[in-house]
Amino acid sequence: MTRAPDERRADFPHFLAIATRWMDNDVYGHVNNVVYYSFFDTVVNRWLIDHAGLDIEKSAVIGVVVETTCRFKSSIAFPDGVDAGLRVAHVGNSSVRYEIGIFKTGDDVAAASGHFVHVYVDRETRRPVPISTEMRAALQRLQRS
Amino acid sequence: MTRAPDERRADFPHFLAIATRWMDNDVYGHVNNVVYYSFFDTVVNRWLIDHAGLDIEKSAVIGVVVETTCRFKSSIAFPDGVDAGLRVAHVGNSSVRYEIGIFKTGDDVAAASGHFVHVYVDRETRRPVPISTEMRAALQRLQRS
Amino acid sequence: MTRAPDERRADFPHFLAIATRWMDNDVYGHVNNVVYYSFFDTVVNRWLIDHAGLDIEKSAVIGVVVETTCRFKSSIAFPDGVDAGLRVAHVGNSSVRYEIGIFKTGDDVAAASGHFVHVYVDRETRRPVPISTEMRAALQRLQRS
Amino acid sequence: MTRAPDERRADFPHFLAIATRWMDNDVYGHVNNVVYYSFFDTVVNRWLIDHAGLDIEKSAVIGVVVETTCRFKSSIAFPDGVDAGLRVAHVGNSSVRYEIGIFKTGDDVAAASGHFVHVYVDRETRRPVPISTEMRAALQRLQRS
Repeated sequence: MTRAPDERRADFPHFLAIATRWMDNDVYGHVNNVVYYSFFDTVVNRWLIDHAGLDIEKSAVIGVVVETTCRFKSSIAFPDGVDAGLRVAHVGNSSVRYEIGIFKTGDDVAAASGHFVHVYVDRETRRPVPISTEMRAALQRLQRS
Repeated sequence: MTRAPDERRADFPHFLAIATRWMDNDVYGHVNNVVYYSFFDTVVNRWLIDHAGLDIEKSAVIGVVVETTCRFKSSIAFPDGVDAGLRVAHVGNSSVRYEIGIFKTGDDVAAASGHFVHVYVDRETRRPVPISTEMRAALQRLQRS
Repeated sequence: MTRAPDERRADFPHFLAIATRWMDNDVYGHVNNVVYYSFFDTVVNRWLIDHAGLDIEKSAVIGVVVETTCRFKSSIAFPDGVDAGLRVAHVGNSSVRYEIGIFKTGDDVAAASGHFVHVYVDRETRRPVPISTEMRAALQRLQRS
Repeated sequence: MTRAPDERRADFPHFLAIATRWMDNDVYGHVNNVVYYSFFDTVVNRWLIDHAGLDIEKSAVIGVVVETTCRFKSSIAFPDGVDAGLRVAHVGNSSVRYEIGIFKTGDDVAAASGHFVHVYVDRETRRPVPISTEMRAALQRLQRS
Protein backbone atom coordinates (compact mmCIF):
# COMPACT_ATOMS: atom_id res chain seq x y z
CA MET A 1 0.00 0.00 0.00
CA THR A 2 1.58 3.27 -1.09
CA ARG A 3 0.83 6.18 1.18
CA ALA A 4 -1.38 8.71 -0.58
CA PRO A 5 -0.20 12.33 -0.45
CA ASP A 6 -1.82 14.70 2.02
CA GLU A 7 -4.83 16.64 0.84
CA ARG A 8 -5.10 20.28 1.83
CA ARG A 9 -7.98 22.73 1.91
CA ALA A 10 -6.69 24.48 -1.22
CA ASP A 11 -7.27 21.21 -3.09
CA PHE A 12 -11.05 21.58 -2.79
CA PRO A 13 -13.29 24.27 -4.36
CA HIS A 14 -16.34 23.59 -2.13
CA PHE A 15 -16.88 22.92 1.59
CA LEU A 16 -19.74 21.93 3.86
CA ALA A 17 -19.55 22.21 7.65
CA ILE A 18 -20.95 19.16 9.45
CA ALA A 19 -21.26 18.82 13.23
CA THR A 20 -20.12 15.57 14.79
CA ARG A 21 -22.54 13.76 17.10
CA TRP A 22 -21.99 11.99 20.38
CA MET A 23 -22.73 8.58 18.93
CA ASP A 24 -20.23 9.08 16.08
CA ASN A 25 -17.46 8.20 18.53
CA ASP A 26 -16.84 4.49 18.89
CA VAL A 27 -15.35 2.56 21.79
CA TYR A 28 -11.87 3.70 20.88
CA GLY A 29 -12.90 7.31 21.40
CA HIS A 30 -12.87 8.67 17.85
CA VAL A 31 -15.35 9.06 15.03
CA ASN A 32 -16.00 5.57 13.67
CA ASN A 33 -14.71 4.93 10.15
CA VAL A 34 -18.24 4.28 8.87
CA VAL A 35 -19.37 7.80 9.74
CA TYR A 36 -16.89 9.40 7.32
CA TYR A 37 -18.89 7.93 4.47
CA SER A 38 -21.94 9.69 5.83
CA PHE A 39 -19.97 12.93 5.58
CA PHE A 40 -19.19 11.93 1.97
CA ASP A 41 -22.76 11.39 0.83
CA THR A 42 -23.94 14.41 2.79
CA VAL A 43 -21.54 16.84 1.07
CA VAL A 44 -22.26 15.34 -2.37
CA ASN A 45 -26.05 15.30 -2.08
CA ARG A 46 -26.22 18.68 -0.41
CA TRP A 47 -24.18 20.15 -3.27
CA LEU A 48 -26.48 18.45 -5.79
CA ILE A 49 -29.52 19.96 -4.05
CA ASP A 50 -28.03 23.46 -3.79
CA HIS A 51 -26.22 23.66 -7.14
CA ALA A 52 -27.48 21.00 -9.53
CA GLY A 53 -31.22 20.94 -9.06
CA LEU A 54 -31.60 17.65 -7.16
CA ASP A 55 -35.07 17.33 -5.66
CA ILE A 56 -34.88 14.26 -3.40
CA GLU A 57 -38.57 13.54 -3.69
CA LYS A 58 -39.29 14.45 -7.29
CA SER A 59 -36.23 14.45 -9.53
CA ALA A 60 -36.62 12.03 -12.43
CA VAL A 61 -32.90 11.33 -12.20
CA ILE A 62 -31.22 10.15 -8.99
CA GLY A 63 -27.65 9.26 -8.09
CA VAL A 64 -26.79 5.68 -7.17
CA VAL A 65 -23.48 5.02 -5.45
CA VAL A 66 -21.30 2.44 -7.21
CA GLU A 67 -17.94 2.80 -5.49
CA THR A 68 -16.48 4.61 -2.51
CA THR A 69 -13.05 4.65 -0.86
CA CYS A 70 -11.67 6.38 2.19
CA ARG A 71 -8.13 6.60 3.57
CA PHE A 72 -7.89 7.57 7.23
CA LYS A 73 -4.82 9.56 8.28
CA SER A 74 -5.58 11.16 11.62
CA SER A 75 -8.50 10.92 13.95
CA ILE A 76 -11.44 13.19 14.59
CA ALA A 77 -13.56 12.94 17.72
CA PHE A 78 -16.83 14.45 18.90
CA PRO A 79 -17.15 17.35 19.70
CA ASP A 80 -14.78 18.35 16.85
CA GLY A 81 -16.38 20.09 13.90
CA VAL A 82 -15.84 18.79 10.37
CA ASP A 83 -15.51 20.57 7.04
CA ALA A 84 -16.12 18.28 4.09
CA GLY A 85 -14.28 19.42 0.95
CA LEU A 86 -15.61 18.41 -2.45
CA ARG A 87 -14.19 18.39 -5.96
CA VAL A 88 -15.07 16.59 -9.19
CA ALA A 89 -12.34 14.39 -10.65
CA HIS A 90 -14.13 13.00 -13.69
CA VAL A 91 -17.47 13.40 -15.44
CA GLY A 92 -18.45 10.49 -17.68
CA ASN A 93 -21.56 9.95 -19.74
CA SER A 94 -23.73 9.06 -16.78
CA SER A 95 -21.25 8.81 -13.92
CA VAL A 96 -19.28 11.27 -11.82
CA ARG A 97 -16.25 10.64 -9.69
CA TYR A 98 -16.22 13.00 -6.72
CA GLU A 99 -13.20 13.39 -4.47
CA ILE A 100 -13.67 14.37 -0.86
CA GLY A 101 -11.46 15.58 1.96
CA ILE A 102 -12.58 15.52 5.59
CA PHE A 103 -10.96 18.26 7.65
CA LYS A 104 -11.14 18.82 11.36
CA THR A 105 -12.20 22.42 11.98
CA GLY A 106 -9.07 24.57 11.91
CA ASP A 107 -6.80 21.97 10.29
CA ASP A 108 -5.32 22.51 6.84
CA VAL A 109 -4.42 18.86 6.21
CA ALA A 110 -7.26 16.41 5.69
CA ALA A 111 -7.85 13.83 8.42
CA ALA A 112 -9.28 11.54 5.74
CA SER A 113 -9.89 11.59 2.02
CA GLY A 114 -11.40 9.44 -0.64
CA HIS A 115 -13.67 9.20 -3.63
CA PHE A 116 -17.34 8.59 -4.27
CA VAL A 117 -18.67 7.49 -7.66
CA HIS A 118 -22.29 8.19 -8.57
CA VAL A 119 -24.10 6.80 -11.57
CA TYR A 120 -27.13 8.86 -12.48
CA VAL A 121 -30.17 6.71 -13.17
CA ASP A 122 -33.82 7.07 -13.96
CA ARG A 123 -35.72 6.99 -10.66
CA GLU A 124 -38.23 4.44 -11.93
CA THR A 125 -36.23 2.11 -14.16
CA ARG A 126 -32.91 2.57 -12.32
CA ARG A 127 -31.18 2.54 -15.72
CA PRO A 128 -28.27 4.97 -16.34
CA VAL A 129 -29.14 8.22 -18.07
CA PRO A 130 -26.81 10.79 -19.67
CA ILE A 131 -25.90 13.71 -17.45
CA SER A 132 -27.76 16.83 -18.56
CA THR A 133 -25.99 19.86 -20.00
CA GLU A 134 -27.00 21.97 -17.01
CA MET A 135 -25.69 19.48 -14.48
CA ARG A 136 -22.51 18.96 -16.49
CA ALA A 137 -21.86 22.70 -16.39
CA ALA A 138 -22.38 22.75 -12.62
CA LEU A 139 -20.05 19.78 -12.14
CA GLN A 140 -17.34 21.45 -14.20
CA ARG A 141 -17.25 24.27 -11.69
CA LEU A 142 -16.14 21.68 -9.11
CA GLN A 143 -13.25 20.44 -11.25
CA ARG A 144 -9.74 21.36 -10.28
CA SER A 145 -8.16 23.54 -12.93
CA MET B 1 -52.75 10.12 24.77
CA THR B 2 -53.12 13.78 25.60
CA ARG B 3 -51.49 16.10 23.15
CA ALA B 4 -48.55 17.88 24.76
CA PRO B 5 -48.44 21.67 24.36
CA ASP B 6 -46.14 23.19 21.76
CA GLU B 7 -42.62 24.08 22.83
CA ARG B 8 -41.15 27.34 21.56
CA ARG B 9 -37.61 28.66 21.34
CA ALA B 10 -38.21 30.96 24.31
CA ASP B 11 -38.73 27.85 26.44
CA PHE B 12 -35.04 26.90 26.16
CA PRO B 13 -32.00 28.78 27.53
CA HIS B 14 -29.39 26.95 25.43
CA PHE B 15 -29.17 25.84 21.78
CA LEU B 16 -26.83 23.78 19.62
CA ALA B 17 -26.98 23.83 15.81
CA ILE B 18 -26.72 20.35 14.27
CA ALA B 19 -26.59 19.64 10.53
CA THR B 20 -28.78 16.86 9.20
CA ARG B 21 -27.14 14.19 7.06
CA TRP B 22 -28.29 12.45 3.91
CA MET B 23 -28.73 9.09 5.63
CA ASP B 24 -30.88 10.61 8.40
CA ASN B 25 -33.81 10.56 5.99
CA ASP B 26 -35.64 7.27 5.91
CA VAL B 27 -37.75 5.74 3.14
CA TYR B 28 -40.62 8.05 3.92
CA GLY B 29 -38.44 11.06 3.13
CA HIS B 30 -37.95 12.61 6.54
CA VAL B 31 -35.46 12.34 9.37
CA ASN B 32 -36.03 8.96 11.02
CA ASN B 33 -37.42 9.06 14.56
CA VAL B 34 -34.30 7.35 15.93
CA VAL B 35 -32.05 10.20 14.81
CA TYR B 36 -33.80 12.72 17.06
CA TYR B 37 -32.39 10.89 20.05
CA SER B 38 -28.93 11.40 18.61
CA PHE B 39 -29.70 15.13 18.58
CA PHE B 40 -30.71 14.72 22.26
CA ASP B 41 -27.53 13.10 23.45
CA THR B 42 -25.42 15.39 21.30
CA VAL B 43 -26.84 18.59 22.82
CA VAL B 44 -26.63 17.22 26.37
CA ASN B 45 -23.07 15.88 26.12
CA ARG B 46 -21.80 18.88 24.21
CA TRP B 47 -23.18 21.13 26.92
CA LEU B 48 -21.55 18.97 29.59
CA ILE B 49 -18.20 19.23 27.78
CA ASP B 50 -18.42 22.98 27.23
CA HIS B 51 -20.02 24.05 30.52
CA ALA B 52 -19.69 21.30 33.14
CA GLY B 53 -16.21 19.94 32.70
CA LEU B 54 -16.98 16.58 31.08
CA ASP B 55 -13.84 14.99 29.63
CA ILE B 56 -15.10 12.00 27.62
CA GLU B 57 -11.85 10.10 28.02
CA LYS B 58 -10.82 10.97 31.53
CA SER B 59 -13.69 12.18 33.74
CA ALA B 60 -14.09 9.99 36.81
CA VAL B 61 -17.84 10.57 36.58
CA ILE B 62 -19.86 9.81 33.45
CA GLY B 63 -23.54 10.10 32.57
CA VAL B 64 -25.56 6.97 31.92
CA VAL B 65 -28.93 7.35 30.21
CA VAL B 66 -31.81 5.81 32.14
CA GLU B 67 -34.89 7.15 30.34
CA THR B 68 -35.69 9.12 27.21
CA THR B 69 -38.91 10.19 25.52
CA CYS B 70 -39.67 12.05 22.33
CA ARG B 71 -42.94 13.35 20.90
CA PHE B 72 -42.90 14.06 17.18
CA LYS B 73 -45.12 16.89 15.95
CA SER B 74 -43.91 17.88 12.51
CA SER B 75 -41.28 16.49 10.23
CA ILE B 76 -37.74 17.58 9.47
CA ALA B 77 -35.89 16.38 6.38
CA PHE B 78 -32.31 16.59 5.15
CA PRO B 79 -31.01 19.16 4.14
CA ASP B 80 -32.88 21.11 6.86
CA GLY B 81 -30.76 22.43 9.69
CA VAL B 82 -31.68 21.66 13.29
CA ASP B 83 -31.34 23.69 16.48
CA ALA B 84 -31.49 21.56 19.61
CA GLY B 85 -32.78 23.50 22.62
CA LEU B 86 -31.83 22.34 26.11
CA ARG B 87 -33.13 23.06 29.61
CA VAL B 88 -32.87 21.32 32.96
CA ALA B 89 -36.16 20.29 34.56
CA HIS B 90 -34.91 18.62 37.71
CA VAL B 91 -31.62 18.00 39.47
CA GLY B 92 -31.64 15.11 41.94
CA ASN B 93 -28.87 13.70 44.09
CA SER B 94 -27.16 11.90 41.22
CA SER B 95 -29.62 12.29 38.35
CA VAL B 96 -30.68 15.10 36.04
CA ARG B 97 -33.77 15.38 33.92
CA TYR B 98 -33.02 17.40 30.78
CA GLU B 99 -35.78 18.59 28.45
CA ILE B 100 -35.05 19.10 24.80
CA GLY B 101 -36.76 20.77 21.88
CA ILE B 102 -35.77 20.06 18.29
CA PHE B 103 -36.40 23.01 15.99
CA LYS B 104 -36.09 23.21 12.24
CA THR B 105 -33.88 26.18 11.37
CA GLY B 106 -36.09 29.25 11.23
CA ASP B 107 -39.09 27.70 13.02
CA ASP B 108 -40.24 28.97 16.41
CA VAL B 109 -42.33 25.91 17.30
CA ALA B 110 -40.48 22.68 18.04
CA ALA B 111 -40.83 19.85 15.53
CA ALA B 112 -40.22 17.42 18.39
CA SER B 113 -39.58 17.55 22.10
CA GLY B 114 -38.85 15.21 24.93
CA HIS B 115 -36.77 14.44 27.94
CA PHE B 116 -33.52 12.69 28.69
CA VAL B 117 -32.58 11.46 32.18
CA HIS B 118 -28.94 10.95 33.07
CA VAL B 119 -27.66 9.28 36.19
CA TYR B 120 -24.09 10.24 36.98
CA VAL B 121 -21.95 7.25 37.89
CA ASP B 122 -18.37 6.41 38.69
CA ARG B 123 -16.67 5.45 35.41
CA GLU B 124 -15.16 2.28 36.91
CA THR B 125 -17.81 0.96 39.29
CA ARG B 126 -20.79 2.38 37.36
CA ARG B 127 -22.39 3.18 40.75
CA PRO B 128 -24.30 6.49 41.13
CA VAL B 129 -22.33 9.37 42.64
CA PRO B 130 -23.64 12.70 43.99
CA ILE B 131 -23.54 15.59 41.54
CA SER B 132 -20.72 17.97 42.45
CA THR B 133 -21.34 21.51 43.62
CA GLU B 134 -19.73 22.94 40.50
CA MET B 135 -21.84 20.84 38.15
CA ARG B 136 -24.98 21.57 40.17
CA ALA B 137 -24.30 25.29 39.76
CA ALA B 138 -23.85 24.89 36.01
CA LEU B 139 -27.06 22.85 35.73
CA GLN B 140 -29.03 25.50 37.61
CA ARG B 141 -28.18 28.01 34.90
CA LEU B 142 -30.13 25.74 32.52
CA GLN B 143 -33.24 25.71 34.69
CA ARG B 144 -36.24 27.68 33.59
CA SER B 145 -36.91 30.50 36.01
CA MET C 1 -39.34 9.06 38.69
CA THR C 2 -40.89 5.78 39.78
CA ARG C 3 -38.99 2.70 38.79
CA ALA C 4 -40.93 0.69 36.23
CA PRO C 5 -41.33 -3.03 36.92
CA ASP C 6 -39.11 -5.49 35.09
CA GLU C 7 -40.36 -6.87 31.81
CA ARG C 8 -39.82 -10.55 31.09
CA ARG C 9 -39.90 -12.60 27.93
CA ALA C 10 -43.28 -14.08 28.87
CA ASP C 11 -44.70 -10.54 28.65
CA PHE C 12 -44.25 -10.46 24.86
CA PRO C 13 -46.02 -12.61 22.24
CA HIS C 14 -43.58 -11.85 19.38
CA PHE C 15 -39.78 -11.61 19.08
CA LEU C 16 -37.27 -10.58 16.45
CA ALA C 17 -33.56 -11.38 16.75
CA ILE C 18 -31.31 -8.44 15.82
CA ALA C 19 -27.51 -8.56 15.69
CA THR C 20 -25.62 -5.73 17.32
CA ARG C 21 -22.97 -3.95 15.22
CA TRP C 22 -19.51 -2.71 16.12
CA MET C 23 -20.48 0.92 15.79
CA ASP C 24 -23.49 0.50 18.10
CA ASN C 25 -21.11 0.68 21.06
CA ASP C 26 -20.31 4.18 22.15
CA VAL C 27 -17.26 5.52 24.01
CA TYR C 28 -18.52 4.09 27.28
CA GLY C 29 -18.40 0.60 25.79
CA HIS C 30 -22.07 -0.28 25.51
CA VAL C 31 -24.79 0.04 22.90
CA ASN C 32 -25.66 3.73 22.68
CA ASN C 33 -29.14 4.66 23.91
CA VAL C 34 -30.15 5.91 20.47
CA VAL C 35 -29.66 2.48 18.90
CA TYR C 36 -32.39 0.91 21.06
CA TYR C 37 -34.93 2.99 19.18
CA SER C 38 -33.65 1.47 15.97
CA PHE C 39 -34.40 -1.93 17.49
CA PHE C 40 -37.89 -0.57 18.26
CA ASP C 41 -38.74 0.56 14.75
CA THR C 42 -37.14 -2.52 13.26
CA VAL C 43 -39.28 -4.96 15.24
CA VAL C 44 -42.46 -2.96 14.61
CA ASN C 45 -41.97 -2.48 10.88
CA ARG C 46 -40.74 -6.00 10.32
CA TRP C 47 -43.85 -7.32 12.04
CA LEU C 48 -46.02 -5.04 9.89
CA ILE C 49 -44.33 -6.36 6.74
CA ASP C 50 -44.59 -10.02 7.76
CA HIS C 51 -48.02 -10.01 9.42
CA ALA C 52 -49.99 -6.93 8.43
CA GLY C 53 -49.30 -6.45 4.75
CA LEU C 54 -47.01 -3.41 4.87
CA ASP C 55 -45.27 -2.86 1.54
CA ILE C 56 -42.67 -0.16 2.22
CA GLU C 57 -42.66 1.07 -1.35
CA LYS C 58 -46.31 0.74 -2.32
CA SER C 59 -48.69 0.64 0.64
CA ALA C 60 -51.24 3.45 0.47
CA VAL C 61 -51.12 3.64 4.26
CA ILE C 62 -47.89 4.14 6.19
CA GLY C 63 -47.06 4.46 9.89
CA VAL C 64 -45.76 7.75 11.24
CA VAL C 65 -44.14 7.75 14.67
CA VAL C 66 -45.67 10.23 17.10
CA GLU C 67 -44.18 9.22 20.44
CA THR C 68 -41.53 6.86 21.76
CA THR C 69 -40.08 6.17 25.20
CA CYS C 70 -37.36 3.90 26.44
CA ARG C 71 -36.21 3.05 29.97
CA PHE C 72 -32.73 1.59 30.21
CA LYS C 73 -32.11 -0.89 33.03
CA SER C 74 -28.95 -2.82 32.18
CA SER C 75 -26.46 -2.52 29.41
CA ILE C 76 -25.96 -4.46 26.20
CA ALA C 77 -22.71 -4.35 24.26
CA PHE C 78 -21.58 -5.57 20.85
CA PRO C 79 -21.13 -8.49 20.19
CA ASP C 80 -24.20 -9.40 22.29
CA GLY C 81 -27.26 -10.51 20.38
CA VAL C 82 -30.61 -8.85 20.98
CA ASP C 83 -34.15 -10.19 20.94
CA ALA C 84 -36.75 -7.47 20.53
CA GLY C 85 -40.09 -8.43 22.09
CA LEU C 86 -43.27 -6.81 20.78
CA ARG C 87 -46.84 -6.51 22.07
CA VAL C 88 -49.74 -4.20 21.33
CA ALA C 89 -51.06 -2.18 24.27
CA HIS C 90 -53.81 -0.20 22.57
CA VAL C 91 -55.41 0.06 19.15
CA GLY C 92 -57.19 3.34 18.48
CA ASN C 93 -59.02 4.54 15.41
CA SER C 94 -55.86 5.30 13.47
CA SER C 95 -53.12 4.85 16.07
CA VAL C 96 -51.45 1.91 17.77
CA ARG C 97 -49.41 1.87 20.93
CA TYR C 98 -46.79 -0.86 20.75
CA GLU C 99 -44.75 -1.92 23.77
CA ILE C 100 -41.29 -3.30 23.30
CA GLY C 101 -38.77 -5.14 25.44
CA ILE C 102 -35.11 -5.41 24.45
CA PHE C 103 -33.49 -8.59 25.77
CA LYS C 104 -29.87 -9.62 25.64
CA THR C 105 -29.68 -13.10 24.15
CA GLY C 106 -30.17 -15.60 26.95
CA ASP C 107 -31.58 -13.11 29.50
CA ASP C 108 -35.13 -13.37 30.76
CA VAL C 109 -35.35 -9.82 32.11
CA ALA C 110 -35.41 -6.97 29.60
CA ALA C 111 -32.34 -4.72 29.47
CA ALA C 112 -34.62 -1.94 28.25
CA SER C 113 -38.29 -1.42 27.52
CA GLY C 114 -40.56 1.24 26.19
CA HIS C 115 -43.37 2.16 23.87
CA PHE C 116 -43.74 3.30 20.31
CA VAL C 117 -46.90 5.01 19.01
CA HIS C 118 -47.68 4.89 15.31
CA VAL C 119 -50.38 6.89 13.60
CA TYR C 120 -51.39 5.37 10.29
CA VAL C 121 -51.65 7.95 7.54
CA ASP C 122 -52.28 8.17 3.83
CA ARG C 123 -48.90 8.05 2.09
CA GLU C 124 -49.70 11.06 -0.11
CA THR C 125 -51.73 13.36 2.11
CA ARG C 126 -50.13 12.25 5.41
CA ARG C 127 -53.60 12.50 7.00
CA PRO C 128 -54.66 9.83 9.54
CA VAL C 129 -56.75 6.98 8.17
CA PRO C 130 -58.77 4.37 10.09
CA ILE C 131 -56.98 1.07 10.69
CA SER C 132 -58.40 -1.60 8.39
CA THR C 133 -60.29 -4.62 9.69
CA GLU C 134 -57.54 -6.97 8.53
CA MET C 135 -54.80 -5.01 10.24
CA ARG C 136 -56.89 -4.64 13.39
CA ALA C 137 -57.29 -8.41 13.53
CA ALA C 138 -53.54 -8.89 13.14
CA LEU C 139 -52.81 -6.33 15.86
CA GLN C 140 -55.19 -8.04 18.27
CA ARG C 141 -53.07 -11.17 18.07
CA LEU C 142 -50.25 -9.10 19.59
CA GLN C 143 -52.34 -7.95 22.54
CA ARG C 144 -51.67 -9.43 25.92
CA SER C 145 -54.64 -11.49 27.08
CA MET D 1 -13.21 2.39 -13.86
CA THR D 2 -12.85 -1.28 -14.69
CA ARG D 3 -15.68 -3.42 -13.51
CA ALA D 4 -14.51 -5.77 -10.77
CA PRO D 5 -15.42 -9.44 -11.18
CA ASP D 6 -18.31 -10.86 -9.21
CA GLU D 7 -17.55 -12.32 -5.80
CA ARG D 8 -19.30 -15.54 -4.83
CA ARG D 9 -19.89 -17.25 -1.50
CA ALA D 10 -17.20 -19.85 -2.29
CA ASP D 11 -14.67 -16.99 -2.32
CA PHE D 12 -15.02 -16.49 1.44
CA PRO D 13 -14.05 -18.90 4.25
CA HIS D 14 -16.05 -17.15 7.00
CA PHE D 15 -19.53 -15.61 7.24
CA LEU D 16 -21.52 -13.59 9.75
CA ALA D 17 -25.29 -13.11 9.47
CA ILE D 18 -26.40 -9.52 10.13
CA ALA D 19 -30.02 -8.34 10.21
CA THR D 20 -30.85 -5.16 8.37
CA ARG D 21 -32.71 -2.44 10.27
CA TRP D 22 -35.54 -0.17 9.24
CA MET D 23 -33.40 2.95 9.31
CA ASP D 24 -30.73 1.35 7.07
CA ASN D 25 -32.96 2.09 4.08
CA ASP D 26 -32.53 5.57 2.70
CA VAL D 27 -34.97 7.71 0.74
CA TYR D 28 -34.35 5.71 -2.40
CA GLY D 29 -35.62 2.58 -0.65
CA HIS D 30 -32.46 0.54 -0.25
CA VAL D 31 -29.75 0.10 2.34
CA ASN D 32 -27.66 3.28 2.29
CA ASN D 33 -24.09 2.91 1.03
CA VAL D 34 -22.70 3.98 4.39
CA VAL D 35 -24.28 1.05 6.21
CA TYR D 36 -22.27 -1.50 4.22
CA TYR D 37 -19.15 -0.27 5.97
CA SER D 38 -20.83 -1.01 9.27
CA PHE D 39 -21.30 -4.58 8.01
CA PHE D 40 -17.57 -4.55 7.20
CA ASP D 41 -16.34 -3.52 10.61
CA THR D 42 -18.87 -5.75 12.32
CA VAL D 43 -17.71 -8.92 10.55
CA VAL D 44 -14.03 -8.06 11.06
CA ASN D 45 -14.29 -7.16 14.74
CA ARG D 46 -16.63 -10.01 15.56
CA TRP D 47 -14.16 -12.43 13.98
CA LEU D 48 -11.32 -10.86 15.98
CA ILE D 49 -13.32 -11.30 19.20
CA ASP D 50 -14.33 -14.89 18.47
CA HIS D 51 -11.12 -16.17 16.86
CA ALA D 52 -8.20 -13.86 17.64
CA GLY D 53 -8.63 -12.91 21.26
CA LEU D 54 -9.78 -9.30 20.87
CA ASP D 55 -11.17 -7.93 24.13
CA ILE D 56 -12.70 -4.57 23.21
CA GLU D 57 -12.25 -3.15 26.69
CA LYS D 58 -8.93 -4.62 27.73
CA SER D 59 -6.75 -5.75 24.81
CA ALA D 60 -3.40 -3.95 24.81
CA VAL D 61 -3.50 -4.01 21.00
CA ILE D 62 -6.41 -2.58 19.00
CA GLY D 63 -7.12 -2.29 15.28
CA VAL D 64 -7.26 1.14 13.67
CA VAL D 65 -8.84 1.42 10.23
CA VAL D 66 -6.58 3.05 7.64
CA GLU D 67 -8.35 2.35 4.35
CA THR D 68 -11.67 0.94 3.19
CA THR D 69 -13.30 0.51 -0.21
CA CYS D 70 -16.67 -0.79 -1.32
CA ARG D 71 -18.08 -1.48 -4.78
CA PHE D 72 -21.85 -1.68 -4.96
CA LYS D 73 -23.32 -4.02 -7.58
CA SER D 74 -26.92 -4.68 -6.64
CA SER D 75 -29.14 -3.34 -3.93
CA ILE D 76 -30.21 -4.77 -0.59
CA ALA D 77 -33.21 -3.41 1.29
CA PHE D 78 -34.64 -3.90 4.76
CA PRO D 79 -36.04 -6.46 5.68
CA ASP D 80 -33.50 -8.49 3.65
CA GLY D 81 -30.97 -10.44 5.68
CA VAL D 82 -27.26 -10.06 5.00
CA ASP D 83 -24.39 -12.51 5.19
CA ALA D 84 -21.02 -10.81 5.43
CA GLY D 85 -18.20 -12.96 3.98
CA LEU D 86 -14.66 -12.41 5.20
CA ARG D 87 -11.21 -13.42 3.96
CA VAL D 88 -7.69 -12.18 4.56
CA ALA D 89 -5.81 -10.96 1.49
CA HIS D 90 -2.54 -9.90 3.06
CA VAL D 91 -0.89 -9.93 6.48
CA GLY D 92 1.93 -7.41 6.92
CA ASN D 93 4.08 -6.69 9.94
CA SER D 94 1.40 -4.75 11.75
CA SER D 95 -1.37 -4.43 9.16
CA VAL D 96 -3.97 -6.76 7.68
CA ARG D 97 -5.94 -6.36 4.50
CA TYR D 98 -9.33 -8.02 4.85
CA GLU D 99 -11.64 -8.54 1.89
CA ILE D 100 -15.36 -8.64 2.40
CA GLY D 101 -18.38 -9.67 0.39
CA ILE D 102 -21.90 -8.62 1.34
CA PHE D 103 -24.52 -11.15 0.25
CA LYS D 104 -28.27 -10.88 0.40
CA THR D 105 -29.63 -13.97 2.17
CA GLY D 106 -30.06 -16.68 -0.44
CA ASP D 107 -27.91 -15.03 -3.14
CA ASP D 108 -24.66 -16.57 -4.33
CA VAL D 109 -23.27 -13.41 -5.96
CA ALA D 110 -22.23 -10.58 -3.68
CA ALA D 111 -24.34 -7.41 -3.75
CA ALA D 112 -21.23 -5.48 -2.73
CA SER D 113 -17.60 -6.18 -1.97
CA GLY D 114 -14.54 -4.35 -0.84
CA HIS D 115 -11.57 -4.27 1.43
CA PHE D 116 -10.77 -3.05 4.91
CA VAL D 117 -7.22 -2.42 6.12
CA HIS D 118 -6.46 -2.51 9.83
CA VAL D 119 -3.23 -1.43 11.44
CA TYR D 120 -2.75 -2.93 14.87
CA VAL D 121 -1.58 -0.39 17.41
CA ASP D 122 -0.87 -0.12 21.09
CA ARG D 123 -4.08 1.05 22.81
CA GLU D 124 -2.28 3.76 24.77
CA THR D 125 0.40 5.09 22.41
CA ARG D 126 -1.54 4.33 19.19
CA ARG D 127 1.80 3.28 17.61
CA PRO D 128 1.86 0.21 15.31
CA VAL D 129 2.87 -3.06 16.93
CA PRO D 130 3.85 -6.33 15.25
CA ILE D 131 1.06 -8.87 14.87
CA SER D 132 1.50 -11.70 17.39
CA THR D 133 2.26 -15.27 16.34
CA GLU D 134 -1.12 -16.45 17.63
CA MET D 135 -3.05 -13.81 15.74
CA ARG D 136 -0.99 -14.41 12.60
CA ALA D 137 -1.89 -18.10 12.76
CA ALA D 138 -5.59 -17.24 13.13
CA LEU D 139 -5.45 -14.79 10.21
CA GLN D 140 -3.82 -17.39 7.98
CA ARG D 141 -6.87 -19.60 8.38
CA LEU D 142 -8.84 -16.82 6.67
CA GLN D 143 -6.51 -16.68 3.67
CA ARG D 144 -7.70 -18.10 0.40
CA SER D 145 -5.59 -21.11 -0.52
